[in-house]
Amino acid sequence: MRNFKLCLSYDGSRYRGWQKQGNTPDTIQEKLEALLSRLLEQPVELHGSGRTDAGVHARCQTCSFRADTSLPCPRLLELIRSHLPEDIGALSLEEAEPSFHARLSCRKKSYVYFIWNSSSPNVFYRKYSGTCPEALDTEAMERAARLLLGEHDFSSFCSLRRMKKSAVRRLDSVDISRSGDMLRLEFTGSGFLYNMVRILVGTLIEVGRAQRRAEDMPALLAARDRQAAGFTAPAQGLFLWEQRY
Amino acid sequence: MRNFKLCLSYDGSRYRGWQKQGNTPDTIQEKLEALLSRLLEQPVELHGSGRTDAGVHARCQTCSFRADTSLPCPRLLELIRSHLPEDIGALSLEEAEPSFHARLSCRKKSYVYFIWNSSSPNVFYRKYSGTCPEALDTEAMERAARLLLGEHDFSSFCSLRRMKKSAVRRLDSVDISRSGDMLRLEFTGSGFLYNMVRILVGTLIEVGRAQRRAEDMPALLAARDRQAAGFTAPAQGLFLWEQRY
Repeated sequence: MRNFKLCLSYDGSRYRGWQKQGNTPDTIQEKLEALLSRLLEQPVELHGSGRTDAGVHARCQTCSFRADTSLPCPRLLELIRSHLPEDIGALSLEEAEPSFHARLSCRKKSYVYFIWNSSSPNVFYRKYSGTCPEALDTEAMERAARLLLGEHDFSSFCSLRRMKKSAVRRLDSVDISRSGDMLRLEFTGSGFLYNMVRILVGTLIEVGRAQRRAEDMPALLAARDRQAAGFTAPAQGLFLWEQRY
Repeated sequence: MRNFKLCLSYDGSRYRGWQKQGNTPDTIQEKLEALLSRLLEQPVELHGSGRTDAGVHARCQTCSFRADTSLPCPRLLELIRSHLPEDIGALSLEEAEPSFHARLSCRKKSYVYFIWNSSSPNVFYRKYSGTCPEALDTEAMERAARLLLGEHDFSSFCSLRRMKKSAVRRLDSVDISRSGDMLRLEFTGSGFLYNMVRILVGTLIEVGRAQRRAEDMPALLAARDRQAAGFTAPAQGLFLWEQRY
């Protein structure tokens, strides 16, 4: 059995997210597993670096799978590309160490959230950004973001009511930058809870609009209560961006 | 009657182009005229700076219309925005001189064509660029473009077989620039024939792939024959970009 590392890119608009859900064919994992199993004539299990919710995109989603095949990687990549729908792209395929696992081996992950920050519409980014017509105080957002860095229990930033597992994660950096009317927020960390990035973004937007104070972030973390944080920013602005191994 | 200048932006993917075609509701002009007539309770005729083909986008399409209304521009703009589908955006609305006409008053126009120049797919640009997996010699493309500048009969670059009107146009500049794997070609001129920009792009791509020589451009113009020029680049890479009055 050879072990493969496959990097995918996808427009999440019409999918119910990454993870397979029984018998809906509308998830990326489901679609890819079916395709690989068909092409390689054997059942293939595909592991992604992490899940993405319905409507969330991936600039790069690193995956791994094992298969018994003698096909050279370039040929297999070409084969995969020729069978993918136009909203899923295969960026690269290479053979990996036997121990490599896209999720378990992942050391760091980053997500990027785009906010179209103007009252004038942008039709080309409508599926690829959240929108905020009000002016945003990005300095206050940066102050708030700095107070969230490090290792914390991020329960306040998780949509699942009953978390059995630990909600402790390490947030390494939050970079906020602007290009014209587009605001870009990049989050890098050890891992992220369900909806965590979108709730972080919603909370930072509320800080930017002066509906919350940056200084309240430590109390917000300490509350360990979803109700204490801001709104969940819409899925279409979020991109799974990069993974480090 | 007041005269208005309206700037629109649209994602042309699902439309049959700008110009109304009798009773299809799938053109931008048709949609906007119907909306303005309904909102202003009078028949409104809308003039665009020029036509865009099926599938072509507009970063900015300047339009003009006359109407008898006392609504202030900001209020009317808000009203228009609230009724537009998400793939058409109203960028601005202002009152114009009585003599202003979006097409007749236009002095210069520019179009931008994006080419995704990589064998690796980009799912996010699939509706907003042409693709060319082969390497392109952009210096040769620039040399060819320079030979097309100025006032010429551009019949070779027009898809309509029988042009009754003059095919003489003035091409002022062609700027070719690259950002990573994305090639951007900007064409500015007095006006453009049917499919002219897309045939210019197809011809320049053939030069970039060394299937034609830059030096052949003068002979190509002199031929005044569509068969002499290159292929018509696909609609989805083309954007009506800017107009000057």
